[in-house]
Amino acid sequence: MMSERYRRSFASDNNAIVHPKIMEALNKVNTGHCLSYGEDSHTEKAIEKFKEVLGQEIDVYLVYNGTGANVTGLASMVTPYQAIICSEAAHINVDECGAPQRFIGCRLLPLPTPDGKLRPEQIESTLSVIGVEHHSQPSVVSITQSTELGTIYSVKELKDLTDFAHRNNLLVHMDGARIANAAASLNVSLKEITTDVGIDVLSFGGTKNGLMFGEVVILFNKKLAQDYKYTRKQGMQLASKMRYIAVQFEALLSDDLWLKNAKQANTMAKLLASKVEKIPGIEITQPVESNGVFVTMPADVAKRLQQEYFFYPWNEEIGEYRWMTSFDMEEHDILDFVDVVKQAISLF
Amino acid sequence: MMSERYRRSFASDNNAIVHPKIMEALNKVNTGHCLSYGEDSHTEKAIEKFKEVLGQEIDVYLVYNGTGANVTGLASMVTPYQAIICSEAAHINVDECGAPQRFIGCRLLPLPTPDGKLRPEQIESTLSVIGVEHHSQPSVVSITQSTELGTIYSVKELKDLTDFAHRNNLLVHMDGARIANAAASLNVSLKEITTDVGIDVLSFGGTKNGLMFGEVVILFNKKLAQDYKYTRKQGMQLASKMRYIAVQFEALLSDDLWLKNAKQANTMAKLLASKVEKIPGIEITQPVESNGVFVTMPADVAKRLQQEYFFYPWNEEIGEYRWMTSFDMEEHDILDFVDVVKQAISLF
Amino acid sequence: MMSERYRRSFASDNNAIVHPKIMEALNKVNTGHCLSYGEDSHTEKAIEKFKEVLGQEIDVYLVYNGTGANVTGLASMVTPYQAIICSEAAHINVDECGAPQRFIGCRLLPLPTPDGKLRPEQIESTLSVIGVEHHSQPSVVSITQSTELGTIYSVKELKDLTDFAHRNNLLVHMDGARIANAAASLNVSLKEITTDVGIDVLSFGGTKNGLMFGEVVILFNKKLAQDYKYTRKQGMQLASKMRYIAVQFEALLSDDLWLKNAKQANTMAKLLASKVEKIPGIEITQPVESNGVFVTMPADVAKRLQQEYFFYPWNEEIGEYRWMTSFDMEEHDILDFVDVVKQAISLF
Amino acid sequence: MMSERYRRSFASDNNAIVHPKIMEALNKVNTGHCLSYGEDSHTEKAIEKFKEVLGQEIDVYLVYNGTGANVTGLASMVTPYQAIICSEAAHINVDECGAPQRFIGCRLLPLPTPDGKLRPEQIESTLSVIGVEHHSQPSVVSITQSTELGTIYSVKELKDLTDFAHRNNLLVHMDGARIANAAASLNVSLKEITTDVGIDVLSFGGTKNGLMFGEVVILFNKKLAQDYKYTRKQGMQLASKMRYIAVQFEALLSDDLWLKNAKQANTMAKLLASKVEKIPGIEITQPVESNGVFVTMPADVAKRLQQEYFFYPWNEEIGEYRWMTSFDMEEHDILDFVDVVKQAISLF
Repeated sequence: MMSERYRRSFASDNNAIVHPKIMEALNKVNTGHCLSYGEDSHTEKAIEKFKEVLGQEIDVYLVYNGTGANVTGLASMVTPYQAIICSEAAHINVDECGAPQRFIGCRLLPLPTPDGKLRPEQIESTLSVIGVEHHSQPSVVSITQSTELGTIYSVKELKDLTDFAHRNNLLVHMDGARIANAAASLNVSLKEITTDVGIDVLSFGGTKNGLMFGEVVILFNKKLAQDYKYTRKQGMQLASKMRYIAVQFEALLSDDLWLKNAKQANTMAKLLASKVEKIPGIEITQPVESNGVFVTMPADVAKRLQQEYFFYPWNEEIGEYRWMTSFDMEEHDILDFVDVVKQAISLF
Repeated sequence: MMSERYRRSFASDNNAIVHPKIMEALNKVNTGHCLSYGEDSHTEKAIEKFKEVLGQEIDVYLVYNGTGANVTGLASMVTPYQAIICSEAAHINVDECGAPQRFIGCRLLPLPTPDGKLRPEQIESTLSVIGVEHHSQPSVVSITQSTELGTIYSVKELKDLTDFAHRNNLLVHMDGARIANAAASLNVSLKEITTDVGIDVLSFGGTKNGLMFGEVVILFNKKLAQDYKYTRKQGMQLASKMRYIAVQFEALLSDDLWLKNAKQANTMAKLLASKVEKIPGIEITQPVESNGVFVTMPADVAKRLQQEYFFYPWNEEIGEYRWMTSFDMEEHDILDFVDVVKQAISLF
Repeated sequence: MMSERYRRSFASDNNAIVHPKIMEALNKVNTGHCLSYGEDSHTEKAIEKFKEVLGQEIDVYLVYNGTGANVTGLASMVTPYQAIICSEAAHINVDECGAPQRFIGCRLLPLPTPDGKLRPEQIESTLSVIGVEHHSQPSVVSITQSTELGTIYSVKELKDLTDFAHRNNLLVHMDGARIANAAASLNVSLKEITTDVGIDVLSFGGTKNGLMFGEVVILFNKKLAQDYKYTRKQGMQLASKMRYIAVQFEALLSDDLWLKNAKQANTMAKLLASKVEKIPGIEITQPVESNGVFVTMPADVAKRLQQEYFFYPWNEEIGEYRWMTSFDMEEHDILDFVDVVKQAISLF
Repeated sequence: MMSERYRRSFASDNNAIVHPKIMEALNKVNTGHCLSYGEDSHTEKAIEKFKEVLGQEIDVYLVYNGTGANVTGLASMVTPYQAIICSEAAHINVDECGAPQRFIGCRLLPLPTPDGKLRPEQIESTLSVIGVEHHSQPSVVSITQSTELGTIYSVKELKDLTDFAHRNNLLVHMDGARIANAAASLNVSLKEITTDVGIDVLSFGGTKNGLMFGEVVILFNKKLAQDYKYTRKQGMQLASKMRYIAVQFEALLSDDLWLKNAKQANTMAKLLASKVEKIPGIEITQPVESNGVFVTMPADVAKRLQQEYFFYPWNEEIGEYRWMTSFDMEEHDILDFVDVVKQAISLF
């Protein structure tokens, strides 16, 4: 287990604290009685904030976590005989312990993506089974922005993908656990990479960007939205003391806190990449576009390094590892880490 | 919607705030990086606390909410062809939007219980189908303590029920969303109504007793426990920043905070009952043993009252309503409410 | 186990043989190659037959058995957060080992029905939860015609029920495992108790009325029908050598074979009832309207009788038993049985 | 659609008739009443036959079809958080419309297999996630014998695979829809490629080898077997008039009918392959070891050919097609087809 008392963790952006402004909002709301299950004024305000940011024509539902947001959001889009097209690297494919299959009962169609990004041509190849009852019917494309590999779809790539999908009667789901990092990196608004490109359902991430807990399911499609509240409840994602999720998001969307946090995490990743790319024996394997740095290094080096900093292997077969940065890191955290990397390298 | 700016709500104990000591714990832990998903020292400490309270031979898993605790806990006990025996009034039967059926895929066998409490004789009547493949196989008895009707199983009733169940190869699940209120009311330890009576799986409630969010699945049965972690993950109940659930429970179990909160809520219910039982036109329908008061009153009175205080009808056919008290109510809150009740009664 | 070598069984109408005309059709079709999965001319002809009988605006899908017809038919009508209203005695509630819950993931709302027949007022009482996300949403009414208790809905009762349902946005499913017996008893066409009263989805029974195997899902609602074929496949009910189901139904619907078979079974039940109602100690508990006779008798008598004829207890608490007649019984079969009943009674 | 009135179909072995001896058995059993749901003497005899063939220590359950056998058999082996390792070409992966995901709720882990055969090394690569709750836990290896590509695992390959699996706490499922073809091709008994190599659960195919309908789930593992009957019922695979499946299998296992049928189909495939391998423009893509011949040919040729004989494309990207032979084909059927192939080739 990570030695907790000193040093930052590069294992995940959810190893970070709750941003002080979020904590402040939680403390502030902690007075008086308040209706539960989202029928309170704080939830109303949070929803308004989202509408200001993403447009008035959306439906907004607060949930607990990313698994919950992805699985219940997707559950509103498909029935069991339909299939969800995604990248082989997608969190819903490899990191949810089969929650989509259990809760939705449908098949995923994972496609290989060296950089985590799906392309229209790939999706097209799955469509020949449409109409044939022996086969799960492809109905939703699920993409991740930023991807699990730290890469980012450009606005044009998103548009091309959703256009292709819609022309082929497919809906588009976006896993936005790190959507803030994507918008920060592309230097566009959140709306430009969601509403404006035609996303149908979005998991909007909060936890990895400074919240204590809380993600949001945004439905851009009124027909899908009408029954989502039942799916959230069935998905065990309806919080009773909802005000404590609501005020976190209200704070996150105020004064560009979401953007500042994301920028800081991204900047730290760039800094880290710029330092390690010069270290012989370390190879950066993916473009560093958000807050993750993927590298290969000798196993011995990794093992040595992990004695001081906890982080995960990504692809053990090729000796690839993942380093995540977070909003609460500062330059000296990166430099400290780089020093340890250098030491480890020098030992072998 | 409840007028939020003044007065307490008698709608639910989850309309209350987060207890200041819980909030303090959250503020205090908000520093430094920490492994996620429960691999941190705070989660370890919370688990230790539970073992001190309920015995060393338990497995402890923190989850988000009551639906999650009940459904994933039950999912560890049954397979889809098995059935869960419960009261018709059980939360899992009427208030989870069918989450058990969706996530577990099994049948519930609800039995009528005027006071919310199951009895061995009732359970026996369901067992004639054992071994016959045309019928769902009764395998788990799920009870609620305190019940949905504010009543409480005595230690002897619990023991008789679990003994009967175990003799008949049935496991026993306890929905303990308000278990603290039960222990406080019976004046016994938490262990005496769980571990000592032979409960197999317990949903231990936190949210209704002063937490921001967080419930716990306690498994007293090592065989059930071994794979529960996968079910929690699939059930979308694995929190990434787990320390923020852990420290809440650590605080709740320290200095008898759980007991003080429960006692206060119970005392307020007793006070409320003692006042309204004298009001003509109001009839108390259930023994007031925990923090709920169930009453019948004329529809006009209820309507008038609900203009000032939000609360739910329980059984509309007989004009029955539910008033819940919570740990953050004080004597004057009750007396204020009773005054308004009296005024409403006097109008009709 | 029943002594098979002599005597008819009164346990179930599925203890009967395959009607010789059905067998003849099977033998006749057994030549040459033929496309599988229903893309053959025999399936086409069977579908045409059903359209002649029930109207052109239907969709017809052949399946293996009654569980399959009911569960996949219902699966086309509800999503997991919706609920299916049915009688407590409904086959889908008590005799499918929880298959609806597992395959559909939804809740059943069983209502008490002394005679197996649901009434609009009962259904109304379940609708107060509509729109409230804590509760499964009632969406389908499932009725059985003839009922599990051998009773029959009149045309007017059916019309009132479906009208009420549709006015309340509920769809109506009919479990017609014994629909032929109902039409024969009411002396109406099959269309008058299905298409004409507004049934949305029908399980049309074949096996209990002389087939080897085979039931049919009839969808009267184009919107529900459009995706049913995928649900049939997922429900493991798509037969590869479909011609062998198709020709059975073609034969059943030809020359009124379905009606002759049903009439014979009904007549035998009437005969049986007329004989046993005079025997002291035997009490008929339900109107004998189709091919079942429900009686109470002393346990010792039943036990003695079961040594020679196999049949099932229906309600052990009150000593109630079920006797089913079938198309391949003749007068002497009934009289033989009545003799044995008389002997058994005389012994105690 | 295939012109049904003349010529054999090479689309699938389920386009064939019911073998006359099977039909004879069905006609013969069609007399007298008989208990339903498998409690009759015919089912008992069929089970005994299977025990003679595969060993006494097995449990035998008759079901309707291959989807049902595979999905309910697998359902007895895994829970939703576990994963089933299979070939990308596996029928359960691509041809069941997601039935395993819906009924079991678990994830499949398909691995690429050029010849349809899984190898231990491939399986090993999936095991690094064991014990980590974020990932579905690999628990079952499902193989197909003969494979979907017409190839066959040798006895040694099977033994190596099951040994590897068992050493790694994985169970082994065999989809034996065409197991007879495999035994015939390997010139071994059915027992040598199932019981003796350590298969845990087997889907034993009947329909493709001359039955009207009927497959069998064989459980070699007593622990898995104890509750399978409930899963069969829930899986809508419990036939009421079971005698009509039972006698088909009794006949199939008598006088080596299963073997004669399989040999004939295999021989016809060999003959077909020997003829077409000499035709320029046609390339055989898989070893012809059972009753399938996989070929590539120009699209125009295929289109021309399909005007007279129906068959399916296998891999449209490379112009690959599948031709299946069946037990009711004779030499002249093959030669006729080869003539048409030659004509088609000569046109382009």
